[in-house]
Amino acid sequence: MSTASPPDLLAAPADDLLTLTAALVAVPSVSRHEQELADRVERRLSERASGLALARVGNNMIVRTELGRDRRVVLGGHLDTVPANANEVPRLDGDVLHGLGSADMKGGLAVLLRLAEDIAAGDEPRVDCTLFFYEGEEIAEEFNGLRRVFADRPELLAGDLAVLLEPTDGHIEAGCQGTLHLRAHFDGERAHSARPWQGSNAIHAAAEALHRLAGHESDTVIVDGLPYRESLQVVRIEGGVANNVVPDSCTVVVNRRFAPRYSVDEARAQVEKLLAGADRIEVVNASPAAPPNLDHPLLAEFVETLGVGVEPKLGWTDVARFASRGVPAVNFGPGDPDLAHTADERVTRASVEQCYAALGRFLGLAP
Amino acid sequence: MSTASPPDLLAAPADDLLTLTAALVAVPSVSRHEQELADRVERRLSERASGLALARVGNNMIVRTELGRDRRVVLGGHLDTVPANANEVPRLDGDVLHGLGSADMKGGLAVLLRLAEDIAAGDEPRVDCTLFFYEGEEIAEEFNGLRRVFADRPELLAGDLAVLLEPTDGHIEAGCQGTLHLRAHFDGERAHSARPWQGSNAIHAAAEALHRLAGHESDTVIVDGLPYRESLQVVRIEGGVANNVVPDSCTVVVNRRFAPRYSVDEARAQVEKLLAGADRIEVVNASPAAPPNLDHPLLAEFVETLGVGVEPKLGWTDVARFASRGVPAVNFGPGDPDLAHTADERVTRASVEQCYAALGRFLGLAP
Repeated sequence: MSTASPPDLLAAPADDLLTLTAALVAVPSVSRHEQELADRVERRLSERASGLALARVGNNMIVRTELGRDRRVVLGGHLDTVPANANEVPRLDGDVLHGLGSADMKGGLAVLLRLAEDIAAGDEPRVDCTLFFYEGEEIAEEFNGLRRVFADRPELLAGDLAVLLEPTDGHIEAGCQGTLHLRAHFDGERAHSARPWQGSNAIHAAAEALHRLAGHESDTVIVDGLPYRESLQVVRIEGGVANNVVPDSCTVVVNRRFAPRYSVDEARAQVEKLLAGADRIEVVNASPAAPPNLDHPLLAEFVETLGVGVEPKLGWTDVARFASRGVPAVNFGPGDPDLAHTADERVTRASVEQCYAALGRFLGLAP
Repeated sequence: MSTASPPDLLAAPADDLLTLTAALVAVPSVSRHEQELADRVERRLSERASGLALARVGNNMIVRTELGRDRRVVLGGHLDTVPANANEVPRLDGDVLHGLGSADMKGGLAVLLRLAEDIAAGDEPRVDCTLFFYEGEEIAEEFNGLRRVFADRPELLAGDLAVLLEPTDGHIEAGCQGTLHLRAHFDGERAHSARPWQGSNAIHAAAEALHRLAGHESDTVIVDGLPYRESLQVVRIEGGVANNVVPDSCTVVVNRRFAPRYSVDEARAQVEKLLAGADRIEVVNASPAAPPNLDHPLLAEFVETLGVGVEPKLGWTDVARFASRGVPAVNFGPGDPDLAHTADERVTRASVEQCYAALGRFLGLAP
């Protein structure tokens, strides 16, 4: 059984969170095409949360309370989705909503909208709140709206704790590992493969380092009691000119995921040691890890109030943008992360409602 | 100082071998575009060597004596050249002819034409002779004219000794090494590179074999007193899906050059042992080695009559097509092989004349 069509985002009632999620899914917002959804979210916020200060930077909207509390909690979610996989039309089946972005992360956006509307309706939180909606999370760094607002209007994102409503399946994901991609170039000299001693083989030159990388056993590093399982993977290799030619170039790309104990420079030094023998090594990209910060008072309160499990985040996420600015940050949002980016992406009513209830409790809103 | 333009191939005097070579260079014959040169060579043979039986198969011409000798020597050369490198116009500078194909191998073709015309003019050789001109030597196997004539009209190439007039710089190149390309596939299973234990890395799976291949020390194998220096090269490697994905496939292409002591199957077994751990191995191509056959009576006579050095051929050449049919075969022709396929390809008058004189001596023609 499925409903005919979800209500328009501007008309959807805030107290039916799954229907509100469906209305958000119904507005396509594949990365770089977020404007329509951004416009509608802005209009809904203007109409239903007009008491809050609203700023827009590109397709990023930030609403803030100004209650003069001594602490401020920042809650955010991205507007964009990965490309559709024959799942762009939302389908409500009982208490399960299927569709692109339902878990990652329009369920979270629905929670954010409802929190904004509750607060604007007079339900005062015990801390100041910043709620933000941003573009370009699923694609390259350069398009990331959070990066842009931090660069252009950092004061809009200031706070003491940040929560991103990425799908976490009921857990708190604390901190995140760093990620580093290095590209190593091994050089050789071309020659006919019948007389290889007249040249030198770049693929052979890479073999020693490759063997070392493949044999490397990564550690599990405990930080704040959480196990961060590191990894080191050769993700690309390419070499060769023609079948009768000794190759003069071999390129290897390595991805290191490192625990929040290490800086980017430390991680880089570890990998460069394993790449010994390379003629040149360049950094493709480097994103620092985010410490879990579980002993930070506000985060400790958050963990205690929610009473759910805390897990280490092994992939890199936008929480690191806050952590690198000294703001503890976690992921906590409705939906199963394993369903994100799949054709049968979906979210349950209970998942969205529990997230809303937990955040409301932490913010001190009326139950 | 350079001559204005070479004479037309049909008008060029046979007794000036360098001018005849220039006339051959002046007719472009890049592989797959040999027809015009084939037509002119055929017409010249019809006009100037009409006493010899002439057959044409595609752009391949074969002329044969029928003197009833108990032994037959087959001499041949390819008509085609590699693509031009701003060197398509022949330029005669004193006793040096510059231009595409001058060394590889229109100098040899000039020698063949002159031998055909000498014989047709009544200069009887002590053995029966087969002289052939063929297309498609510089490119893929499927276009090779020698392969085609062996397949369609093998009786036209029957003989007791074969000499190919490839540039050898005054030496006899005996036999040739075999060549074998194997493609090895290593499989894995995709996963996010932050959680590699959920998949398996195909590039890592290849590392052990790659390390073994790179560390392999090839032998120098002595056959008939000649040193065949073998080689084993990884000529291509490719793997990777995206920078955040554990790769599920890695492909390695290996080229083995093996001495005439070994069969293709033996060489294949040697390499497959080094590729242990691959999920699949396929043969890309395999060409058997040609034994030098220096103890064959007619080849021993050839070596003794010429009185020049004998070297092992490390690359694969068309001599192997004769050797695989039990006919000893060598390369012996004018020009420096290191200049073949270069922009400044050239051949000297002395080189062409010495080749002509040596072959005439062996065939028992009048000096």
